[in-house]
Amino acid sequence: MRLIDDRSGLEVLGREECLRLLGAAGVGRVAVVEGGHPMIFPVNYVVDGEEVLFRTASGTKFDAAARGQVVAFEIDEADPIYHTGWSVVVTGRAEEVTDPERRATIDAGRLRPWAEGVKDHVVAVHTERVTGRRIVHVDKNVG
Amino acid sequence: MRLIDDRSGLEVLGREECLRLLGAAGVGRVAVVEGGHPMIFPVNYVVDGEEVLFRTASGTKFDAAARGQVVAFEIDEADPIYHTGWSVVVTGRAEEVTDPERRATIDAGRLRPWAEGVKDHVVAVHTERVTGRRIVHVDKNVG
Repeated sequence: MRLIDDRSGLEVLGREECLRLLGAAGVGRVAVVEGGHPMIFPVNYVVDGEEVLFRTASGTKFDAAARGQVVAFEIDEADPIYHTGWSVVVTGRAEEVTDPERRATIDAGRLRPWAEGVKDHVVAVHTERVTGRRIVHVDKNVG
Repeated sequence: MRLIDDRSGLEVLGREECLRLLGAAGVGRVAVVEGGHPMIFPVNYVVDGEEVLFRTASGTKFDAAARGQVVAFEIDEADPIYHTGWSVVVTGRAEEVTDPERRATIDAGRLRPWAEGVKDHVVAVHTERVTGRRIVHVDKNVG
């Protein structure tokens, strides 16, 4: 059974499916609000427990905005030929990982910064609110 | 000659290079501010003259937020194996394309909606402010 959003025509993905898609890690984008305007940045990310983790370069506008604020984190995949695709968005407060033990574990893992060789912070976004949509091809002659 | 951002260590791309990368069209992401919080959505887009065009489904929160506001539009490409990549961000006011002639031309073109089969609006974001960054691998023993 599939849940289709009436307005967009997209299939609504459940939390479990969203977390499965997030689990592959890779490249996502973080949107933050800065002076009332949206900013958006690509990041490498991993999922650790219930959180999405990414690194930020110290002292950047992005670093400041991405800590302590509500951010939106997005991943997607699209096939331009067959016009299939999906997207998952996590919305939540972003907090810096300050616990030294957790930070050491993260640093020993596979989370790379987008930009190499910079001193960085690790930011965690809780996956409390996770939404996902998948493009569906509906036969318009039926129903 | 390359311009490297000191803080992030990323190469700063010029406007011409950004527009060239945008010119390939495809999938991008739009970030909007809604109730003070960021929202982010994938879109198919094309570049038409000096503007990025994408479609929105009528009546959605995204549709409302993406018209008349400053939005951020992002594209990126990343190779997870070689850790290469780049991103381009366009920031500007989003306006609906209401001119019937222009709209007809767009509808006859290759701009597809992300979600198929929905009544939609075409939104244009002017490329006045375009920034781009590329991951560079610097030999840390030199310089």
